[in-house]
Amino acid sequence: MLKGYTLPRTPRGTSSLAPKPPWHYVGNALAVEYEVNEVVAATFLPDGLDLVSSRCVAYFIEWQYSSETKEDFLDPVCSQYRETIILLSAQFAGMPVAYCPFIWVDQDVALMRGLVQGWPKQMGSTWITRAYDLPSKANPIIGAGGKFGATLSVKDRRLIEAQITLGELTDSLPAPNFASAVNVRYFPELAAGKHGKPAVHELVQLKSRDVVVAPIWKGEATMEFFDHPYMELPDLRPTSVGAGYRFSFALTVDDLTHLRDLRTNDLAY
Amino acid sequence: MLKGYTLPRTPRGTSSLAPKPPWHYVGNALAVEYEVNEVVAATFLPDGLDLVSSRCVAYFIEWQYSSETKEDFLDPVCSQYRETIILLSAQFAGMPVAYCPFIWVDQDVALMRGLVQGWPKQMGSTWITRAYDLPSKANPIIGAGGKFGATLSVKDRRLIEAQITLGELTDSLPAPNFASAVNVRYFPELAAGKHGKPAVHELVQLKSRDVVVAPIWKGEATMEFFDHPYMELPDLRPTSVGAGYRFSFALTVDDLTHLRDLRTNDLAY
Amino acid sequence: MLKGYTLPRTPRGTSSLAPKPPWHYVGNALAVEYEVNEVVAATFLPDGLDLVSSRCVAYFIEWQYSSETKEDFLDPVCSQYRETIILLSAQFAGMPVAYCPFIWVDQDVALMRGLVQGWPKQMGSTWITRAYDLPSKANPIIGAGGKFGATLSVKDRRLIEAQITLGELTDSLPAPNFASAVNVRYFPELAAGKHGKPAVHELVQLKSRDVVVAPIWKGEATMEFFDHPYMELPDLRPTSVGAGYRFSFALTVDDLTHLRDLRTNDLAY
Amino acid sequence: MLKGYTLPRTPRGTSSLAPKPPWHYVGNALAVEYEVNEVVAATFLPDGLDLVSSRCVAYFIEWQYSSETKEDFLDPVCSQYRETIILLSAQFAGMPVAYCPFIWVDQDVALMRGLVQGWPKQMGSTWITRAYDLPSKANPIIGAGGKFGATLSVKDRRLIEAQITLGELTDSLPAPNFASAVNVRYFPELAAGKHGKPAVHELVQLKSRDVVVAPIWKGEATMEFFDHPYMELPDLRPTSVGAGYRFSFALTVDDLTHLRDLRTNDLAY
Repeated sequence: MLKGYTLPRTPRGTSSLAPKPPWHYVGNALAVEYEVNEVVAATFLPDGLDLVSSRCVAYFIEWQYSSETKEDFLDPVCSQYRETIILLSAQFAGMPVAYCPFIWVDQDVALMRGLVQGWPKQMGSTWITRAYDLPSKANPIIGAGGKFGATLSVKDRRLIEAQITLGELTDSLPAPNFASAVNVRYFPELAAGKHGKPAVHELVQLKSRDVVVAPIWKGEATMEFFDHPYMELPDLRPTSVGAGYRFSFALTVDDLTHLRDLRTNDLAY
Repeated sequence: MLKGYTLPRTPRGTSSLAPKPPWHYVGNALAVEYEVNEVVAATFLPDGLDLVSSRCVAYFIEWQYSSETKEDFLDPVCSQYRETIILLSAQFAGMPVAYCPFIWVDQDVALMRGLVQGWPKQMGSTWITRAYDLPSKANPIIGAGGKFGATLSVKDRRLIEAQITLGELTDSLPAPNFASAVNVRYFPELAAGKHGKPAVHELVQLKSRDVVVAPIWKGEATMEFFDHPYMELPDLRPTSVGAGYRFSFALTVDDLTHLRDLRTNDLAY
Repeated sequence: MLKGYTLPRTPRGTSSLAPKPPWHYVGNALAVEYEVNEVVAATFLPDGLDLVSSRCVAYFIEWQYSSETKEDFLDPVCSQYRETIILLSAQFAGMPVAYCPFIWVDQDVALMRGLVQGWPKQMGSTWITRAYDLPSKANPIIGAGGKFGATLSVKDRRLIEAQITLGELTDSLPAPNFASAVNVRYFPELAAGKHGKPAVHELVQLKSRDVVVAPIWKGEATMEFFDHPYMELPDLRPTSVGAGYRFSFALTVDDLTHLRDLRTNDLAY
Repeated sequence: MLKGYTLPRTPRGTSSLAPKPPWHYVGNALAVEYEVNEVVAATFLPDGLDLVSSRCVAYFIEWQYSSETKEDFLDPVCSQYRETIILLSAQFAGMPVAYCPFIWVDQDVALMRGLVQGWPKQMGSTWITRAYDLPSKANPIIGAGGKFGATLSVKDRRLIEAQITLGELTDSLPAPNFASAVNVRYFPELAAGKHGKPAVHELVQLKSRDVVVAPIWKGEATMEFFDHPYMELPDLRPTSVGAGYRFSFALTVDDLTHLRDLRTNDLAY
C-alpha cells in the first residue's frame, strides 16, 4: 500500500511533494490595487464567472510554511518561498469572488500545493523589500514614508515592477482578496484524441481558516507590467494604479468547496 | 472560451505551462545499472505491478525540448532542463515494464509535462559531465577510458553521486528503460473528508514515438546514494553497481495507454 | 576617464559591481557559539595572528543592503543576500580579534564588496528561519521557546545544519564578533613565475560604524558540520556546541585599518 | 603557513576558490559580430588603448573547466559554467587587441579566476541552444540552416537576445577574439581617503596556450540589447549586426603579460 497525499507515493508516505493537509502559512505581503481594461479582463474568466469591475490586485508575498506534523520552518529551504498573485474581481452566482489568471512561486512544494487548489502556478522569481526594525539607510520604516519595492521575473524576463510608499494604517485589506478565491482545478488527459478532454476541470472555492492579519499599512503605489512575446500577462496591465498595501498575515488550508464541474456544468457533482 | 493544455488557461491559450502535445525531446544520458534490495523495492510498487528483479537503473539526462509549433530551443531557458530518473524492474499482467519511484527535474515546464504523464516529478539539481569533441584536460573523450560524472541534489542536499568509465560500444540500451515506463497519474482532492480519495488515480503506460538512439557506450560505474532524514530514496540504494552507459537519443510524446483505474481497479474505463 | 569603485569601470561609473562606499547593511542573524580543536584551529590563522581560545561562532544572516546614493532596497534582487560566517578567536599584537576562515554569500555584489574587505567569500546557499509577528504553526515566536533553524549548502552539498531554541534576552552579543574582524586582503599574480607572489597580501581590520543592535535573544543550540571531499571546513567542526542567539543589527562600512603587509611583514606601509 | 592561490587560504590549500594555474577550458561558443557607435565605444576604453574600429563581438559560451591536479569535470557543478562576453576592437601601442567592457558568468570559481585575469566579471544567466547529433524537432543541425539562440539575463532582467542561422564552414574565427584580450586588473582600497587609489590597476594581456578550435560554422545573425536603468551595456548596443558563428574550442591559461601600471603609467614595472 503506497502512501502520500501527492506523487511520489511511497511505502512510508514521507516522500510526497505535498504532505496531507492542513497546510499552515504565514507571510509578509505587498499589494497594489489597479484598474484593468474590463473588456479584456472579462475574456480571462472561466465559465461560471463574470467580471464585476475593472479592479485588480497584484500581491507579492514572502511566505513561510509548515505542515501539521513537522516543523518545516526549521529546514527553511523546505518551507520558505515567494509568490506573485494577480487577482480579478469576479462573481459566481451573484457572489463576489476573486479569480486568479496568473500566479508564480519559486519552490516545487508550493507549486504542487497550488495545483491541488486550482492555482495556475508557474515558477517565477519574486523579490520584495524587507523591513527590519532598526534605523538604517538599508531599510524602509514600517510607517508613513516607508518605501517598498517588488519585482517579478519569469524565465529570465522581468515582468512586473512595483513600488509602494506607506501612508497610514487602515482597517481594510486590499480587494479582491485571495483567501477565498475561486480557482479552476484542471488535470489534462494525454491519451491520443483526449488532449482537449481533461480528467479534472472544475470550479472550486478556497476555504482558508484561522486567518489572522497584522496591522495593515496603506499608501501610494506605482506598478508597471513589461512586454512578453507570448505570455498574456501584459494584456492585464494597469490602465491606472491605485493604493498600495503592506501587511502580514497567517492562514491554514485544508478544505475547499466544489462549485461546478466544468466538464458537465453539473453544480451538484 | 479559455484555451490551454494545462493551467494557466487564457484567451489565446499561449500562456499554459505545458502546451498541447506532441512534445519533442533530445537528450544526452548517463545511466547506471544497479541492484537493489528486492524486498524493499517491491514495497515501492503500486497496485497492479509486481517486481520481477532487483535490477534498477539511474538515468541522468541533459535535455532539450521543443513543442510542435514553436522552436522553443531558440529561447533555451524555456527548452533545456536536466533530469534524474530511478527505474525499477516490474511487470504488469505478465509484461515486463519499468516503474519510476523517484524523478527530479529543474524546470517547471518539465515538471508539469511530467505530472500529466504520471511521472512523480520534483525539482532537483542534476549535473552531468559534458563531452566536447576536442582534446583537453577539461573534457573526457567519448571512447574507451572516457570518464563521466553525475550528481543529484535536492533542497540543498546531495543525494546521488555516480561515475562512469567508458569501455566499448554496445547495441543494448540499459534496462529497464523509460521510453515505455508504467506510471501512476494522481491528482488528489482537497475537500475535507476526501484527502485520501483522489480525483485521478490510474496506472498508465507511456507511448513514446520516433525514438532514435545514437551510438551507445558502455563501461564500468560507481554510484552512491546518501542519507536523507525522511525522503525514501536511500531505501533504494545500490546493493551492488553494474554497468554504466552514455548515449544520446530523441523521442516524441503525445499519447499514453490507460492500464487500470486504481480507484476502482477497472481495467476498461 | 573610466569610473567605478570596482570592475567593470565605465564612462559614467554606474556599472561597477560594487559602488563607492559607504555601504549600509541591516540584517537578521542567528549565531551559534561552539568549541573547536585548538591545535587545528591555530593552523588556520595567517601570519600575525595567534589563537586565544577554542571559541568559535557560526553566523547565519539575512541581509538587506543599500549604497549611499541609491535606495537599492527598492530593487531587492540587487540588495538582499544571505550569508554564513565562521569566526575564530584570535589576537593581533595582544589585542583580541575575530578571524574568518570561511564565509559564503549568494550574490555577486556581496562577494565583491567582501573581497575588497578581505573576507574570503565564496558563493553558498544559506537558509534561515524567519519570524513573523503572528500566531501560526508556520512561525516560531521571538521569545522563550521560539525555535529557529539555519543551513548552509555549497555546490550542491549541505555543509552545516544548526538549530536554536530561544531562552531569554541578554545584553551580550556572541563572541567573537564580525564587526571588527581582522581579514587578509589577497590578490594573486597570474604572470608565470609569480603565482605564489601576490600583488596584494595584507592584514587589515574592519572599521564598521553606526552599529545598532536590536534586542538579543539567547538560548540553546545544536549544530553539525558535514564531511566534504577536499574543502577544509570540517576540520573546524564543533567539539561542543554552546549558546545560540538571534538578533537584528545594522552597520555601515567605508573604512578599514591596515595592520601589516604580509609580503614584507612591514607594519607601517 | 596558509596555502591557496586565492582566498580562502587554508592549511592544506585545498579550499581556495580558484586553485593554482594552469586552468584548462573547453567550450561551445556562439558569437555575433556587430557594429557599435564608435564615439561611444571609445569612451569605454582604459588609458593606453585606442579604438580601431566599430567592430564588436558578443560571445555566448558553455564551458567545462578543469584544474591541473583534479578532474573537476567529474563533479560538474564545480566545473561547468556559462558566459557572455562583449569585446571591442582596440589597439595598444599600434598592436590590435580585444578589450572587454562587460562579461558575465554563473559560477563563483569562474568569477574569481576572471578577476585575477582582469576580466570585469559579474554574475549573469546565459542560455545557449545546444546541438545533439540526432534528427529531432528539439534540436538544430550543425550545418547549413541550423538555428541557434542565446540570451543573457542579469539580476532578473533580460539584457541580450541573439539568434544565428548557420550557412557554411569558414576558416576564420570572429574578430576581435578573446584569447589574447587586453584586460585591466583592478583591486581597490577601502581605507578612508583611498577609495579612488586602487592597490592594483594595471593593463595586462592574456596569454592563452594550447588553443584548439573545431570546425567553425558561419551564418546570419540577429541580436538585440535591452534597456537597463543604470548599467551601461545598452550604450554599446548594435547599430548593425553582422555574421554569426558557432564553434567549439579549448585552451589553457596560466600566464599573462603586464603592459602598463595604470597607477604610474610605468611600462616596465
